[in-house]
Amino acid sequence: MPAPLPAHVPATMRAAVLHAPKDLRIEERPVPVPGPGQVLVRVEAVGICGSDVHYYEHGRIGDFVVRAPMVLGHEPGGTVAALGPGASLHQPGQLVSLEPGIPCGTCTQCRHGRYNLCPDVSFYATPPVDGALCEYVVIDEHFAHPVPDTLTAETAALLEPLSVGVWAARKGRVGTGSRVLVTGAGPIGLVAVQTARAFGATEVVVTDIAPERLALARELGATDAVDVRTARLADTGYVPDVLLECSGVPAVADEAIRAVGRAGRAVLVGMGGDTVPLPLAHVQNFEIEVTGTFRYANTWPAAIALAAAGDVRLDRLVSHRYGLGQAEQALTAAARDRTTIKPLVCPLSG
Amino acid sequence: MPAPLPAHVPATMRAAVLHAPKDLRIEERPVPVPGPGQVLVRVEAVGICGSDVHYYEHGRIGDFVVRAPMVLGHEPGGTVAALGPGASLHQPGQLVSLEPGIPCGTCTQCRHGRYNLCPDVSFYATPPVDGALCEYVVIDEHFAHPVPDTLTAETAALLEPLSVGVWAARKGRVGTGSRVLVTGAGPIGLVAVQTARAFGATEVVVTDIAPERLALARELGATDAVDVRTARLADTGYVPDVLLECSGVPAVADEAIRAVGRAGRAVLVGMGGDTVPLPLAHVQNFEIEVTGTFRYANTWPAAIALAAAGDVRLDRLVSHRYGLGQAEQALTAAARDRTTIKPLVCPLSG
Amino acid sequence: MPAPLPAHVPATMRAAVLHAPKDLRIEERPVPVPGPGQVLVRVEAVGICGSDVHYYEHGRIGDFVVRAPMVLGHEPGGTVAALGPGASLHQPGQLVSLEPGIPCGTCTQCRHGRYNLCPDVSFYATPPVDGALCEYVVIDEHFAHPVPDTLTAETAALLEPLSVGVWAARKGRVGTGSRVLVTGAGPIGLVAVQTARAFGATEVVVTDIAPERLALARELGATDAVDVRTARLADTGYVPDVLLECSGVPAVADEAIRAVGRAGRAVLVGMGGDTVPLPLAHVQNFEIEVTGTFRYANTWPAAIALAAAGDVRLDRLVSHRYGLGQAEQALTAAARDRTTIKPLVCPLSG
Amino acid sequence: MPAPLPAHVPATMRAAVLHAPKDLRIEERPVPVPGPGQVLVRVEAVGICGSDVHYYEHGRIGDFVVRAPMVLGHEPGGTVAALGPGASLHQPGQLVSLEPGIPCGTCTQCRHGRYNLCPDVSFYATPPVDGALCEYVVIDEHFAHPVPDTLTAETAALLEPLSVGVWAARKGRVGTGSRVLVTGAGPIGLVAVQTARAFGATEVVVTDIAPERLALARELGATDAVDVRTARLADTGYVPDVLLECSGVPAVADEAIRAVGRAGRAVLVGMGGDTVPLPLAHVQNFEIEVTGTFRYANTWPAAIALAAAGDVRLDRLVSHRYGLGQAEQALTAAARDRTTIKPLVCPLSG
Repeated sequence: MPAPLPAHVPATMRAAVLHAPKDLRIEERPVPVPGPGQVLVRVEAVGICGSDVHYYEHGRIGDFVVRAPMVLGHEPGGTVAALGPGASLHQPGQLVSLEPGIPCGTCTQCRHGRYNLCPDVSFYATPPVDGALCEYVVIDEHFAHPVPDTLTAETAALLEPLSVGVWAARKGRVGTGSRVLVTGAGPIGLVAVQTARAFGATEVVVTDIAPERLALARELGATDAVDVRTARLADTGYVPDVLLECSGVPAVADEAIRAVGRAGRAVLVGMGGDTVPLPLAHVQNFEIEVTGTFRYANTWPAAIALAAAGDVRLDRLVSHRYGLGQAEQALTAAARDRTTIKPLVCPLSG
Repeated sequence: MPAPLPAHVPATMRAAVLHAPKDLRIEERPVPVPGPGQVLVRVEAVGICGSDVHYYEHGRIGDFVVRAPMVLGHEPGGTVAALGPGASLHQPGQLVSLEPGIPCGTCTQCRHGRYNLCPDVSFYATPPVDGALCEYVVIDEHFAHPVPDTLTAETAALLEPLSVGVWAARKGRVGTGSRVLVTGAGPIGLVAVQTARAFGATEVVVTDIAPERLALARELGATDAVDVRTARLADTGYVPDVLLECSGVPAVADEAIRAVGRAGRAVLVGMGGDTVPLPLAHVQNFEIEVTGTFRYANTWPAAIALAAAGDVRLDRLVSHRYGLGQAEQALTAAARDRTTIKPLVCPLSG
Repeated sequence: MPAPLPAHVPATMRAAVLHAPKDLRIEERPVPVPGPGQVLVRVEAVGICGSDVHYYEHGRIGDFVVRAPMVLGHEPGGTVAALGPGASLHQPGQLVSLEPGIPCGTCTQCRHGRYNLCPDVSFYATPPVDGALCEYVVIDEHFAHPVPDTLTAETAALLEPLSVGVWAARKGRVGTGSRVLVTGAGPIGLVAVQTARAFGATEVVVTDIAPERLALARELGATDAVDVRTARLADTGYVPDVLLECSGVPAVADEAIRAVGRAGRAVLVGMGGDTVPLPLAHVQNFEIEVTGTFRYANTWPAAIALAAAGDVRLDRLVSHRYGLGQAEQALTAAARDRTTIKPLVCPLSG
Repeated sequence: MPAPLPAHVPATMRAAVLHAPKDLRIEERPVPVPGPGQVLVRVEAVGICGSDVHYYEHGRIGDFVVRAPMVLGHEPGGTVAALGPGASLHQPGQLVSLEPGIPCGTCTQCRHGRYNLCPDVSFYATPPVDGALCEYVVIDEHFAHPVPDTLTAETAALLEPLSVGVWAARKGRVGTGSRVLVTGAGPIGLVAVQTARAFGATEVVVTDIAPERLALARELGATDAVDVRTARLADTGYVPDVLLECSGVPAVADEAIRAVGRAGRAVLVGMGGDTVPLPLAHVQNFEIEVTGTFRYANTWPAAIALAAAGDVRLDRLVSHRYGLGQAEQALTAAARDRTTIKPLVCPLSG
């Protein structure tokens, strides 16, 4: 029998539940009880990701289909509210950032440290697993990363997208003196720009078609920003060591890979259809390494370090804040308003 | 003033010179004199490569255009005939395998050990540099690799294509227990099969459309061979760790990359047009590393080791032998006869 | 309530239990019941390791002290006798080799794929965890590696020491063409010799002071064997790329590291006291990488591949076989008889 | 016949020449003429390194003995004064930092990109090669690294010691979030502290016995500084991922390696006698990688990037400046005055 929850934890909570495409309901659900080695976390901020929006609009992403009502949201920050049996890594009240995928720990991928590729991972808001767009969640204590008090729950939430950038930068082996090209200045592109700079890149050129996003990219550390409606990347003569492709547009990926210099790396972060054209001769003649990223592994310590040191400015990504009751507005913000970068839902605020 | 050449070295020699597409002439040329740090090598065997055939037929490969008469051939084995001033690594008579590209040694690529990507490399039979389809060549002594006497000049010549396989296997990180897929059972595919096995691969599945090549692949160590005219790779359920793509056919590359397992590597060795389709979602979801190979670097020691240990059977690749006077027949053999794998030209034999 | 065990599994079994130094007792114990995700394995062969002998003689290894009676043995091979709830990876009767350490799966080391360094690992025959010198053991199904029927339970048992060699070879990055030095031709040295050869090493020189072990090393693939009672390693002029130090003798380690060539690796496998002298100037001038090994991670697939391919001869390591009732003789064999390499206990045989 | 030097280049220059231990003479020598592919550099600043001091005091370092008069100095910054035949990478007047060792470019080490281990390197102020403590030097154009005009010749000079730090950080794989221990806060330790921070280390703890050096280390980014005269490192409980050992004191190295955490790296930069004790059991149980550094390879681009971005403060290392005529004072400064960190000789200033 599990220990009773502390008195301050209510029995029920609100959750934003997707029933079908464009059918999101705020429902009352029982507060989950942390099992052995788990913690219960009071969710204070949840970033809205493009995948949440995609599930909201289409009810599926590729082979992942929402067949039963599912809570959305996989970028939560909050505080530890209670410990499950045997959990010992936190004190109640600890600010934490939740790594939203729990791998099996024993398969070949897990045993090699590539737990993001675990075929049996349980990941928030990936069918049929409920997400974190609600007031309380439980999670394995090892995946509730303590965050210094100098940071906020909002920043804790945004360590998830930052982790995408950290993983991309690692895959691309960005380091001191690197020359980086980031294609696409959406939320992930803007994280990639900052991560690349924080990893030591000397030059970070960003491309997009939205002037306001390019301006923000400059503010966040891009050394050059190219509006590809009016200029061609190839004309700049820029030869990056590393491409972080964040647009998901096949033609952009193709042109960008052609720009990469000898022995360079092209990391495909943006999702965009089944295939992209790969410029074979260039990839061969220059021995470019092309890879894609799938989530992240072992990124939180670095993400926390970057945020704590002030080397990235995650707050600048937050364009709008919503209460939990406004979750649908948060999910539709990007479609309504092109200035939206990253909407945040703050369950405590209504 | 250079030292005079030994008395047994003639003043002139025969060379197979390409003047224009399908205009190959056997000409008398001066025997070259080895410069400082160079050696003069008596060429005893030269493998004919697809790139030689391509130059012969089209007078160009991509941006490399034969604008002046050029000696073909870049897979030579032979014996050291004379030493240039300061050369000290060989004794005359030493059997050597020639690494046919001399990099600059000081550029960024060279300084990082990626000398195959040196933009200033001087490579045999790549315009405007003369090749080795002749009786004598000079080369930097460091690129004339001594080969044990237990091997032959023919094997010494074939260490060049073997190097292509070694480089591909390294790029793919083939090792003990690897599961490998080789697409295409031409000369390079057959080398790739053998190299993969020698590097420790447990399973090596090969695909092609020519039964005789598939049979030869089996003989050389493939654990399975799939005739893709009558069977589909996907139906085999084979999940390789490493793809060594040697067909150069875009549709084959696409399907083969889709077969690669989580965290696998896809090495594109075969040349086939400007672009190939890259299965983006698969590359991302499984974090496949895709790369191409351009020649090789630091492969001769390993290639020599494999050949000396008998771990590869290069002789089985030799389908036909020609004298230097028959060089044109060697270059057209593949077009005339589909059983041709690797024609060899032996200048000593006529 | 767990499922009842199959009728052919008895309720009790014999086990070799260490109560105190030199106090080993054969006791009757209950056959363990496999828990969720575990399998019950009928133990058919157990290799005796130096650590078993050390516990037997001293009751401790460093900080690991046998404070309560403990079953010895951590190199078991056998067949699956029953499946615990949810276990699905095996069929009863499957021949398996047991990887004897179960890591926590969630700590920093585990999450990076370095599960051998997990501080919470539960390892057979490391206090207070019981080992496998008994008739039945339970183990997490993921750590009961299926072995092809072409191999025997004895070989399955010996995949554990082979894993030590595989891990050492990986740490030393032994590959095609490597030149390796193995110091010490005991069980691990003899495994290291074979592994190095199987990983592609061209030259493997071994040193020891016992002629019969040096002879066996030659038989198992060493290209040279140096008796360091009568010859000095330095006098041979041998410059290895990789040292696999298996003697545990500080002076041997020191001299051997000094032999390693530029950018070489020195892998310290043998255990030998608190410190060894590190030849600093040589390590710096040649930028030698020195590391030690602690057990192994992700080695079984490669070990199985090597054994299945016949690339190693593990049977040659077995010098003596004992029944379970003779376990004490097995543990004292090495002290009694210097020809002992690897004693095996076969519980089925008495 | 070489091109005549520009009119503004004099025919002779002053040079600080070591004739014997403590016998340094300022002599008039011909200005060297740049050969093919070389540039002539006007030396504006030269850092004094411990090795210069060691040659001055002892006339040798290990096997390197000053047998003929030799110009000291290998940390020069300056401007390009003239180009040799074929040199094309610079414009006259370009500020450059000189990488002081020219490798052969063709040996095994060079071909693998490990040119710092080239046995045939020609290195400034290593017998019998003259150094840069003079007014003009010639150097291969590829080793005269252009430095942005925003930096000074002094900084250009100090990119050499910075390169030592960059190389050590790379060997230790310092990155975002690393915890680093630097033992010894001399010139190299202070560079290591800054480099570690610039590479993303979150914590950098430094140890020394001189309070003023520890204070400077803190100023330059150390997050903690331990005076090991009054405190023990082990008592701090600090568990670094990476040790950068810069003291050269064997007992310090031993204790520091014991502090390194699981899978950590210990990089031995400080020179200190023939052997240091290696804590074997710790190195094995935690699989610590121990290596030494010998100069550096491919570090200038990163060093320039760090300096140009203001991520390191090299000027704070310069404790004293001297004219060329005061070179002997510069060489004896450290012995006279313990506040000396890095003396600089500025040949233009007298």
